[in-house]
Amino acid sequence: MPLNEMRKDYILNRWVVIASQRKQRPSDFVRASQPPKQSTCPFCPGNEDMTPPAIFVYRQVNGKIMKDRDTNDFRHKDWLVRCVPNLYPAFSPPRDGEAGIQKEDVFESADALGHHQVIVESPRHDEHPGVAQIAQLTLVISAYRDCVGYLSSHEYVRYVSVFRNHGLDAGASLSHAHTQVIATPILPRTVAEEVERSRSFWDETKRCIFCDIIEKEEGGQRLAWQSDKFIVFCPWASVDPFEFWIFPKRHMSTILGMAPNEEKDLARTLRVCLGGLRSILQDPPYNFAFHMTPDGHYHWHIEVYPKLSIWAGLEKGTGLFINVMPPEEASLNLREAIKSEEEKIGS
Amino acid sequence: MPLNEMRKDYILNRWVVIASQRKQRPSDFVRASQPPKQSTCPFCPGNEDMTPPAIFVYRQVNGKIMKDRDTNDFRHKDWLVRCVPNLYPAFSPPRDGEAGIQKEDVFESADALGHHQVIVESPRHDEHPGVAQIAQLTLVISAYRDCVGYLSSHEYVRYVSVFRNHGLDAGASLSHAHTQVIATPILPRTVAEEVERSRSFWDETKRCIFCDIIEKEEGGQRLAWQSDKFIVFCPWASVDPFEFWIFPKRHMSTILGMAPNEEKDLARTLRVCLGGLRSILQDPPYNFAFHMTPDGHYHWHIEVYPKLSIWAGLEKGTGLFINVMPPEEASLNLREAIKSEEEKIGS
Repeated sequence: MPLNEMRKDYILNRWVVIASQRKQRPSDFVRASQPPKQSTCPFCPGNEDMTPPAIFVYRQVNGKIMKDRDTNDFRHKDWLVRCVPNLYPAFSPPRDGEAGIQKEDVFESADALGHHQVIVESPRHDEHPGVAQIAQLTLVISAYRDCVGYLSSHEYVRYVSVFRNHGLDAGASLSHAHTQVIATPILPRTVAEEVERSRSFWDETKRCIFCDIIEKEEGGQRLAWQSDKFIVFCPWASVDPFEFWIFPKRHMSTILGMAPNEEKDLARTLRVCLGGLRSILQDPPYNFAFHMTPDGHYHWHIEVYPKLSIWAGLEKGTGLFINVMPPEEASLNLREAIKSEEEKIGS
Repeated sequence: MPLNEMRKDYILNRWVVIASQRKQRPSDFVRASQPPKQSTCPFCPGNEDMTPPAIFVYRQVNGKIMKDRDTNDFRHKDWLVRCVPNLYPAFSPPRDGEAGIQKEDVFESADALGHHQVIVESPRHDEHPGVAQIAQLTLVISAYRDCVGYLSSHEYVRYVSVFRNHGLDAGASLSHAHTQVIATPILPRTVAEEVERSRSFWDETKRCIFCDIIEKEEGGQRLAWQSDKFIVFCPWASVDPFEFWIFPKRHMSTILGMAPNEEKDLARTLRVCLGGLRSILQDPPYNFAFHMTPDGHYHWHIEVYPKLSIWAGLEKGTGLFINVMPPEEASLNLREAIKSEEEKIGS
């Protein structure tokens, strides 16, 4: 199979992967919003043969967590977390003669070089972060770190995106708890703009712009929660109702720099914040995405986008958004709900 | 009621209107995707009192089209097209003491000065452009022109967005055929980027970049349709499956420059193209948005985004898109379907 093709808009700095490997007929698009019928979950224990061999699994052996990998002939069955290649990858590793960016007149393209992996977060189908055990979620975060560390070591990889789609309306085609990891040969535009601005701010002031934002939001009315290591707030210009961002308080450009106690604190933070969101809005669909880069002036974080409204003609056509829920009010609701979650799970 | 507030992201050039006038409780967001129950259509003839007085209506008087307006005490009942203020406006005209852009540290904001109007496209509830009479659709396009002309004359208006949401999944909260027109005090980012690039290209080459694109796409495999005056193609880096763009062949920066025969040709173009889309995909939800500015180097056009997939964590988090339908294949399907529509309606 040939690699997918990436294409850049005639004018905008906007890239799209034309994933023709997943090519469909027009009729496949009719009522695409219907729930897919899937009798057997390919991510549940016992069905390991429904996916390619795991790139790695975590297993518990004599009370310790071990990392192993499957082979073509052997799949581990006793896994706690499992990382597998996506069966329908948008990005694929290089083989022979791949092309970098090509430009002919207004037509700019590149091979969709990279990786597309899935982290199965638990053997338990419904162990989503909002209800997960902290110990399990800590393993998931270790798996994110392992995955990002490995993928970003390839010279053709410019960015690694770790993101999660929760619920059918947020684009999750399988309901088993899982995260996707996509490594791309370009720095996507949203992160590129953040990197550029954080670099120029650093050059001007010798300070991190995100550290400044954290300081301003820490004492304010958009604060939703904080722990020793993390701070959670609804951003000033929230695009989505109940949107919130999670930042490590310590300046770190990627998750690769986290210490074990920070990983555990992050697990707890995700658990109570996504649990709080779940309790306010009856398990709403949402997406989250990590933003991180190796640039030292950058400050990694997670952005959580509840899927409670539809981006329509204005949003799609102009990039201007309407949000009917002020972040100051969203944070008020989240604050209470997160506190309740915290009391529920204890310390 | 105070004006809504616009806010800019800490870092990105991305604006959001915090529409607190439409403030809702958390419970209002639960299952927001359920069809709203509305027994009486506020846009159907006879229910004119359910909207504010019309800013203008088109009526047929002695075989000629007349333009009139409602008053507080009197609403026209015999209208063909009706333009009314949105009952829940995101943007509102100035009253007293409005503030321009204000910036305090990382917090940038502005009053949401502008207008938010609705064009009711027909007295017939279901006369959407894909099935409309050409004569009716020609009136709708005249209404767009009237609306844009009036709104862009205000000194506090920097951009006028004309867009249409079709179907519940594309954000249409009312099913009666209608278009929205929003005038904003800023130039939204997507259009701003196009303007900037088309200006720099013009400065370098003394040519319009869009005229160049049209020339390149005219003979190619992404062409979906063309008439005397308009050309329709699936863009090279289509973000959405079956996305297509409609350009006037003649260089014009806004729709205000259209001649009557061009308006009629555009009506026909919209009719056959949206009719073709409708027939391939069983009346799919879609959005369309006009892009236009008064800048002479710009070239106005319409972008049509069928809503057949979900923007998930990757798209929302990074601004990088995956499209499973190559535009070359979408255009092939659209081409046939549009031709059938053309034969159906005759010339």
